[in-house]
Amino acid sequence: MASLSDLPLRDSLRGKSPYGAPQINVRYALNVNENTHPIPEPVAHDIVTSLARAILSVNRYPDREFTELRERLAGYVGHGLTAENIWAANGSNEILQQLLLAFGGPGRKVLGFPPSYSMHSIIAEITDTQWVMGERDAGYEISPQTVVESIRRTQPDVVFLCSPNNPTGTHLSLETIAAAYDACDGIVVVDEAYAEFAPDGAPSALDLLEGRERLVVSRTMSKAFAFAGARVGYLAADPVIADALRLVRLPYHLSALTQAAAVAALEHTPEMLAMVDDIRTQRDRLVVELAALGYTPLPSASNFVLFGGVDDPKGLFEALLERDILIRDVGIPHHLRVTAGTEAETSAFLAALADLTTR
Amino acid sequence: MASLSDLPLRDSLRGKSPYGAPQINVRYALNVNENTHPIPEPVAHDIVTSLARAILSVNRYPDREFTELRERLAGYVGHGLTAENIWAANGSNEILQQLLLAFGGPGRKVLGFPPSYSMHSIIAEITDTQWVMGERDAGYEISPQTVVESIRRTQPDVVFLCSPNNPTGTHLSLETIAAAYDACDGIVVVDEAYAEFAPDGAPSALDLLEGRERLVVSRTMSKAFAFAGARVGYLAADPVIADALRLVRLPYHLSALTQAAAVAALEHTPEMLAMVDDIRTQRDRLVVELAALGYTPLPSASNFVLFGGVDDPKGLFEALLERDILIRDVGIPHHLRVTAGTEAETSAFLAALADLTTR
Repeated sequence: MASLSDLPLRDSLRGKSPYGAPQINVRYALNVNENTHPIPEPVAHDIVTSLARAILSVNRYPDREFTELRERLAGYVGHGLTAENIWAANGSNEILQQLLLAFGGPGRKVLGFPPSYSMHSIIAEITDTQWVMGERDAGYEISPQTVVESIRRTQPDVVFLCSPNNPTGTHLSLETIAAAYDACDGIVVVDEAYAEFAPDGAPSALDLLEGRERLVVSRTMSKAFAFAGARVGYLAADPVIADALRLVRLPYHLSALTQAAAVAALEHTPEMLAMVDDIRTQRDRLVVELAALGYTPLPSASNFVLFGGVDDPKGLFEALLERDILIRDVGIPHHLRVTAGTEAETSAFLAALADLTTR
Repeated sequence: MASLSDLPLRDSLRGKSPYGAPQINVRYALNVNENTHPIPEPVAHDIVTSLARAILSVNRYPDREFTELRERLAGYVGHGLTAENIWAANGSNEILQQLLLAFGGPGRKVLGFPPSYSMHSIIAEITDTQWVMGERDAGYEISPQTVVESIRRTQPDVVFLCSPNNPTGTHLSLETIAAAYDACDGIVVVDEAYAEFAPDGAPSALDLLEGRERLVVSRTMSKAFAFAGARVGYLAADPVIADALRLVRLPYHLSALTQAAAVAALEHTPEMLAMVDDIRTQRDRLVVELAALGYTPLPSASNFVLFGGVDDPKGLFEALLERDILIRDVGIPHHLRVTAGTEAETSAFLAALADLTTR
């Protein structure tokens, strides 16, 4: 049997393990911040119709520029953006990878602010971009001064911000994002995967795009659109960013099926976003009830809640798993993260937790 | 308006243009070696049924290990391989990119044998792997001695072979592949995108996998399975190769829709491969009739024919385009490449060519 050490693996990968949360079959999967609501049946019906049409010409390569999808996404994000401002890929992971292939790479640095989305540093590693870390203030916030100090100290070529931040739920101010942009000459990426779960009227980095050609807002259909299985990430930015990514994207990277499914889903934006309100309600309920149980939940602008005050995170994680409830230990001492699911899922989690807490 | 020079693009990308054949709407698109046969209606029906099932849980992340798809692909390629020997990605482009991310990269070299699939050198560039070139013998063949000499001279970390070779149609002998493997310590990749179009009984690098853990056979469903729009590439190799790629793959890189569509198509292998025989017939006809017209077609084991003896390739390309026929100028002097289409498409191409040739 050959082993990895028999292969001429790149040095930087030696001894590493593949990334990925455990995929365990449980009744209540509240571990990877999915939208736990299946898409509404009439929407599913239209998506299948769109897919059936796409299958008729699936022997041909797909539209390499996925023009219709970019038009629909532009319409969805608004802010006066057009298809030229939009780029898409197989999940926002691929968006971030393409950005580092274009603007990072050997001899270059990307600055991140842990704790944050764990793929940020892994994509840096895959693309041989040096990963450097900034500081956060109390409560995982990042003030304009803090972001500027981190940038001055590390001199990054790319900055990854995340708002609302995974796993903390923290929302960044536009002042912090603008200050980061002004403090560097590199690309500033704001990962807004969970943007739709922020409070109504909360600012988005989209508000800052005008006149900032190095600013990129990364988004996904995985969460608000309940489309994690379809793998559709996208970005909004100056059109020149898409020009740069065309140099590193693999031609035809977005399949005809992906394009057809996403276009159909975007035609049903109101129905899809109706789920978001339900999820926000459950998230707010989690914050209230976790506090009532004596835990210390962080304020969250996302579809999950990170809560502290856990004496034994590993033990609690295992005890919940025994009850068919899967949540996430993100490695922050005395904390666990739980996804806001449906009302029934949230109730099941809270009931089990109450039971385990009073023991 | 911002321009690319305003962005902190990686130095190696400055001044480059995006890769991609022109996407022009024509009646006869014979330029990118697609399978021009739409998939049979009963197969399309089953694929849509499979997609409809997948849509029901598209709110969840897909199986990160795409186990069912790997099982089906293993069954299809045979040779006693199992799911552990198989890995898949969004087109064989992504397979090749993952291989270079794992085994190439900064300070490493990949050896290719132009003229060959043009993405090979582009993926090298994207992954910052140095591209070095080997020699071919007369008629674009590569003998065992020639491959060994090129490897000794260039000392590559990865070798890209292509059989049948795009754009020449040339088939490599197993002796050449085995000699390449023995001559180096690196990964030897045989790109067999067009394998199904080779003559019956033609050897495949799959025959050599046993005991060669550094050998990788890359394949695609784009061609024989008429699935270019669905983007399904895969490889067969020792299981340790998949272990290496798990370190660089983006988690959930293969969507639930891609997995569902590919699994359904593989259930219909006999119907799908029936098209292959038709295409081989048209390819053989092209070789005969191009010669009769005074051109010098190369022998082809693929679904396209490269033909020489063209006085003015650009002029002929344009004249055919005026007649709604798109073929490919691959940059080899006095040569053009044409895809073997349906009988009607092939007839239309040959009639137009005869007309243009006698003038």
